[in-house]
Amino acid sequence: VTTIDVTLQGIDKAPIIRHRRSTRLRIVIVGGSDAGVAAALRARELDAEAEVELILADDFPNFSVCGIPFWLSGETPDWRGLAHRTLEDLSAAGLKLRPNTLVKGLDPARGEVTLSEGSQEPSIGYDRLVIATGAVPKRPQLPGFELPDVHVLRTMGDAFSLHRALDAGVGSVLIVGGGYIGVEMADALRRRGLEVVLVERGEQVLSTIDSELGATVADELAAHGVRCLTGTGVVAIERDDGYLKALLDPGGEIVAELALLVVGVQPQTSLARGIGAELGESGALKVDAQMRTGVAGVWAAGDATETYHQLLQRSLYIPLGSTAHKQGRIAGENAAGGHAEFAGTLGTQVVKVFDLAIAATGLREANALAEGFTPLTVQSVIEDHKAYYPGAHPLHIRIVGDRRTGQLLGGQIVGHISGQVAKRIDTLATAIYHRMRVEELSSLDLSYTPPLSAPWDPIQTAAQVWERARSTNCGSRAAGVEGR
Amino acid sequence: VTTIDVTLQGIDKAPIIRHRRSTRLRIVIVGGSDAGVAAALRARELDAEAEVELILADDFPNFSVCGIPFWLSGETPDWRGLAHRTLEDLSAAGLKLRPNTLVKGLDPARGEVTLSEGSQEPSIGYDRLVIATGAVPKRPQLPGFELPDVHVLRTMGDAFSLHRALDAGVGSVLIVGGGYIGVEMADALRRRGLEVVLVERGEQVLSTIDSELGATVADELAAHGVRCLTGTGVVAIERDDGYLKALLDPGGEIVAELALLVVGVQPQTSLARGIGAELGESGALKVDAQMRTGVAGVWAAGDATETYHQLLQRSLYIPLGSTAHKQGRIAGENAAGGHAEFAGTLGTQVVKVFDLAIAATGLREANALAEGFTPLTVQSVIEDHKAYYPGAHPLHIRIVGDRRTGQLLGGQIVGHISGQVAKRIDTLATAIYHRMRVEELSSLDLSYTPPLSAPWDPIQTAAQVWERARSTNCGSRAAGVEGR
Repeated sequence: VTTIDVTLQGIDKAPIIRHRRSTRLRIVIVGGSDAGVAAALRARELDAEAEVELILADDFPNFSVCGIPFWLSGETPDWRGLAHRTLEDLSAAGLKLRPNTLVKGLDPARGEVTLSEGSQEPSIGYDRLVIATGAVPKRPQLPGFELPDVHVLRTMGDAFSLHRALDAGVGSVLIVGGGYIGVEMADALRRRGLEVVLVERGEQVLSTIDSELGATVADELAAHGVRCLTGTGVVAIERDDGYLKALLDPGGEIVAELALLVVGVQPQTSLARGIGAELGESGALKVDAQMRTGVAGVWAAGDATETYHQLLQRSLYIPLGSTAHKQGRIAGENAAGGHAEFAGTLGTQVVKVFDLAIAATGLREANALAEGFTPLTVQSVIEDHKAYYPGAHPLHIRIVGDRRTGQLLGGQIVGHISGQVAKRIDTLATAIYHRMRVEELSSLDLSYTPPLSAPWDPIQTAAQVWERARSTNCGSRAAGVEGR
Repeated sequence: VTTIDVTLQGIDKAPIIRHRRSTRLRIVIVGGSDAGVAAALRARELDAEAEVELILADDFPNFSVCGIPFWLSGETPDWRGLAHRTLEDLSAAGLKLRPNTLVKGLDPARGEVTLSEGSQEPSIGYDRLVIATGAVPKRPQLPGFELPDVHVLRTMGDAFSLHRALDAGVGSVLIVGGGYIGVEMADALRRRGLEVVLVERGEQVLSTIDSELGATVADELAAHGVRCLTGTGVVAIERDDGYLKALLDPGGEIVAELALLVVGVQPQTSLARGIGAELGESGALKVDAQMRTGVAGVWAAGDATETYHQLLQRSLYIPLGSTAHKQGRIAGENAAGGHAEFAGTLGTQVVKVFDLAIAATGLREANALAEGFTPLTVQSVIEDHKAYYPGAHPLHIRIVGDRRTGQLLGGQIVGHISGQVAKRIDTLATAIYHRMRVEELSSLDLSYTPPLSAPWDPIQTAAQVWERARSTNCGSRAAGVEGR
């Protein structure tokens, strides 16, 4: 055993601390979901000698939280399929797993993680620590929201519990919350043939897209038999003769056999706060570009942390699986001695609802305005491939650009799932990453064959429509519509 | 009528010429396909007063040459559907069309286009001229290649002729040439139930992709009953008892009722050469970034011209529909008085063959080597979305990067048509446009939902595999395979 001075530079007030370490670096990761496993894998990839141990609360490391709706729908027949990697994969990668283990406290001065009672050992030592404790579903403190038939959905445990209830013959479900999990679950439950009512407090489902596109999504939900009540909140839930009765604001009630609360998540930060890690304004853990918490030797990643936004140039709470993987990879690299920096995100996301794909990246008009941009939003409706080839569907594309500078700020696309919506938004995300001007999109050499696109990709045509609207000084409602 | 001095700057040896012009600028465009129409529309968009006239050799302006195989297959029921825009659309956009008219000569000193005999007028005057004369199919000077049952495929006239022959009950077709039109026509003709043999002189079909991927394409063709003979040329075609007999090199023969020669195209440059426009090394018209020919007042665009390659930083002959639209738009803008510059292309292309999409952008190992790069090519096989959601198919992704600098140089993807192959190559094309390093691809915020992608998009996983191969100094055959 040797003693090595490890100096962590560049963090304000970070003391020079002395780690006891063997020749093998000991990296402990609290949390076994996407961020934690990504960190662990990256650390081992870069330092094959490192001892990397994951502490996880349950028995399901690296399960795809995003995949749960598809197991509940029946599309994914076996829940075991939801594992990004099996236990064997993780062991083969050299990771040590400590499942079903809760962490009681952290002691960065001693480099120790205290485990909850009943654990094999009372504590384990570390040289470097990654906090990847994720998020928990919000459960509003309202009457009846704790009833047993009121479910949340986050962990595999939540999924098993809901699955059991559905298998027991539930016929009707009230979904509270019209975010992406809410609409995915509406899809999933209709696929099982259940009666589904979705209640959303906001003016539309999917608050991540503009109202002009929200209507298209609402139509899709209605066409598949989902009853949507927007502008409506649930203020209490009561037991009523074997059913649940939800009392609505501004009035009315919904009766269903089961309720699913999917109104967002909140970061789990108590362990990190316990050692003095700072929270950002959003309430999630504050980290720097290297995913350092400010506590020496402690990194954080995933849904417990804030996410740097490339365009806003500050951090927000945008918990997404794709981001958790990226942040985890950076944290793991740096815990293993690297100096990687997280480039931030644009909040890029896509969701499939029945036959629609709904994708967005970057800013929308309202937040662009709030940030001091002079946004112009222009919507186009353009076929996803040449209309003469069978199976063309309209893409509804909204381009947000800065009227003054011409900079591309954001994009939203809604179209048929066959229309490459997700990977078209990726071109916009890549363009925004590089601070492209809307006009310059026409210079990109994008691929074309009639069954899959057009000589100008629809995002380029939409960019050209935006430029015309800009030059003719049209307002954001003067949507151009192009079909070429 | 006023007289205005027009000074064309920046072209070597371009004289200051004096155009007669009315208050309306008179722009004449020779050629009515993609480049010509794009130029005309852009000119009118920027100068609504301009008199824009298109001279076209046939009666089918702005028809989608790329769409012809889909009409021949029956997927596009009506050939009229192949028009990007109808005659009414073009008139409504303010364009004047002169169909079925051949140009005999050009006189840039007088600003005159001489029309062929039989035209309504012997000549028409112009202030600005755009040459968009396109390309013609190569027809090797070999015995029997001029027989009536030996077809080529480029114009609507060619398409009608082939369609009539097929409707007359042809049962077997020999396709000579395994480029993208060859394989698309193999698909089209099999869809009609015909017997199809494809003969390709090179070692594989689709010379735009590496041999490791060519095998996948060959399997797809074979699985759909296309007989492929690679490494085989046709040296002569003979009439044989109502059939055609093709004599093969290195031996053997193929008997079929009809032959289709699709062995590439050559630029139509004679008009431009007649006024002293220069050709590039490729034999196509040389143009500068503004699409100027070097002859004052004369621009050129589309398949008659060379294309600037962003990575090679020089011009090649890469005739593609998507490029023709871009070049035409630039030429039209500048003919109307603008100063737009063509950013060049990366040769990005995609072709659909049965259920496969095959896409490529940028450089391949061999041409990267020839350009002085130190390329490393790494292939990965990655599911196009999370395997637990139904319908996942493998993407075969090849990443070409510079081993020394890490710069992304090119990419190739082969996968199922449902796998967003075309728009995934677009992200790579956008990345190359911005001179990204392979490693930096992992910083892009790309969209994820289990039915459509993975938390790391497959192109990012492929980039990570490339980085690992680079750091372990693996050769290009040490292909990594990832399934996460």
